[in-house]
Amino acid sequence: MPLFLLETFISVKMAIRYGVIGTGALGGFYGGKLAKAGHEVHFLFRSDFEYVRKHGLRVDSVNGDFHLSEVNAYRDSHEMPLCDIILVCLKTTGNRQLPEMIKPMLHPNSVVVLLQNGLGLEEDLSKQLPGAAIAGGLAFICSNKVGPGHIHHLDYGKLNIGSHNVPDTEILNRVVADFQLAGVHAELSANLRFARWQKLVWNIPFNGMTVVLNTTTDRLMANESTCELSRELMLEVIRGANACGVPLKESLAQQMIEMTIKMKPYAPSMKLDYDHRRAMEIEYIYSKPIQTAQDAGFVMHKISMLEKQLRFIQAHLADK
Amino acid sequence: MPLFLLETFISVKMAIRYGVIGTGALGGFYGGKLAKAGHEVHFLFRSDFEYVRKHGLRVDSVNGDFHLSEVNAYRDSHEMPLCDIILVCLKTTGNRQLPEMIKPMLHPNSVVVLLQNGLGLEEDLSKQLPGAAIAGGLAFICSNKVGPGHIHHLDYGKLNIGSHNVPDTEILNRVVADFQLAGVHAELSANLRFARWQKLVWNIPFNGMTVVLNTTTDRLMANESTCELSRELMLEVIRGANACGVPLKESLAQQMIEMTIKMKPYAPSMKLDYDHRRAMEIEYIYSKPIQTAQDAGFVMHKISMLEKQLRFIQAHLADK
Repeated sequence: MPLFLLETFISVKMAIRYGVIGTGALGGFYGGKLAKAGHEVHFLFRSDFEYVRKHGLRVDSVNGDFHLSEVNAYRDSHEMPLCDIILVCLKTTGNRQLPEMIKPMLHPNSVVVLLQNGLGLEEDLSKQLPGAAIAGGLAFICSNKVGPGHIHHLDYGKLNIGSHNVPDTEILNRVVADFQLAGVHAELSANLRFARWQKLVWNIPFNGMTVVLNTTTDRLMANESTCELSRELMLEVIRGANACGVPLKESLAQQMIEMTIKMKPYAPSMKLDYDHRRAMEIEYIYSKPIQTAQDAGFVMHKISMLEKQLRFIQAHLADK
Repeated sequence: MPLFLLETFISVKMAIRYGVIGTGALGGFYGGKLAKAGHEVHFLFRSDFEYVRKHGLRVDSVNGDFHLSEVNAYRDSHEMPLCDIILVCLKTTGNRQLPEMIKPMLHPNSVVVLLQNGLGLEEDLSKQLPGAAIAGGLAFICSNKVGPGHIHHLDYGKLNIGSHNVPDTEILNRVVADFQLAGVHAELSANLRFARWQKLVWNIPFNGMTVVLNTTTDRLMANESTCELSRELMLEVIRGANACGVPLKESLAQQMIEMTIKMKPYAPSMKLDYDHRRAMEIEYIYSKPIQTAQDAGFVMHKISMLEKQLRFIQAHLADK
């Protein structure tokens, strides 16, 4: 058998080895689904390490509960094997530590998938880890960590993956296929930048407003003033994206308002962080989009006001 | 003696009879000072009426405490005499009832002085009471009602009075003189509209921001983000005023920031209303300036965002 055929054969048949950095609401669910489906998944934990070693990982899901009794659990990425796909499921507030955590797991063909919200994440990591193949992932999911090694998946779950600078995106197709076979509604996005801006149209108004006004999405929608303000914030995101050459349509604002009105009362992740006095993801959800739009000549007046209010709240979280 | 001389004589010598509508932190202090100085002052009370009838009015002031044992107290303006000057010291949230309250006290030469914050107050009352002579007053004072018939004057006290449509402003000069002799730093403003916009440069950022962020002026100033945001809000007021032909200078923003940094920790009146779950003066401090600027072609992006946040908070005050 000629060598190139053998290589093809191997590359097709070799299973992807997954690493999950940050095993919380997102990493526990998506990584857990892959592990449940029989994939080799290595999980990095912090405080839950001892618990998961003893008791495994439990996922209560609207799509069916499951429990992983044997988990490849680590508390230091230096102890982890090299991985083909590294799913980063940490909050972006910890991204400064990211390169050091990722490095021990990288081989020449590894792809890092940033399953995080916001803008400019791949660009920043690319500067910190020159040459690394990076993709982004957007999770449309309601999921919480409710206890040590215990994830509660409440609703939705779609995963949208797109390449930032992955030389051969065939591996991303295989990741999507792995997720689909594991029961996760995954898709490959042809335009990661478009997908990130599109998600910000919802994330920017509702993460910040639920924190500043200490409320939930349903109340913001039920009040005429804040429903209108949410729409204005969405339009500011859309126009900022347009200034950056991302062709989001203004009609998206009305669609998202209608979708949010139909949703159950919801506290976005930033509101949960606020409620638990944790650091909020202001930098990548607010500051980066504001700066990116401004570099393209568009000033986000209202969003930068929301950012400043959030920075004040962040500084006073301990007073709460 | 010819009749015209007699009339002049009488008009010069006749003391001004004052009526005070709303005897709280402002009305109790300014009306109290006039009464203490020997002027005839008639006070309209609500809940404090019985208490003041029995115990009088007490003013604890940084400039000297005093007590008025005999107060011309009323609980219905229909029982009050006609007054030359009617000082309206109610919160603007009650302005719909104002014409009915004022009418019984009006004689052909009465002047109504609206000692209230915001914009468009005189215009609205003028529509409701066609032909009435109206002036405005701006109080720069830290004063609270701390109990029934009990006012606590903490700091400052300057009173700035200006005509809206007073045919003969000589009476306003006499009011200013009365206040000065009573120990109040009063001045006649040549341009009420200018004075009202100028005061909004401080009131718009700090009333709303202390409510939305549930804080005090010193903390807003100590935080880089909210100090900058306060400045941006001030500049938006100044540019709105400029669009309306009111020549406020942009340097005023920096002056007010520096003044506020030097001030003691302060909760503006809207923050006190919020803390006590009372209606906030959103209409005249926010909505009217926004509308007035917009009519002149200037959009107040950030101030209208603050207005919408306040309207949400107002609607949910009962949940607090």
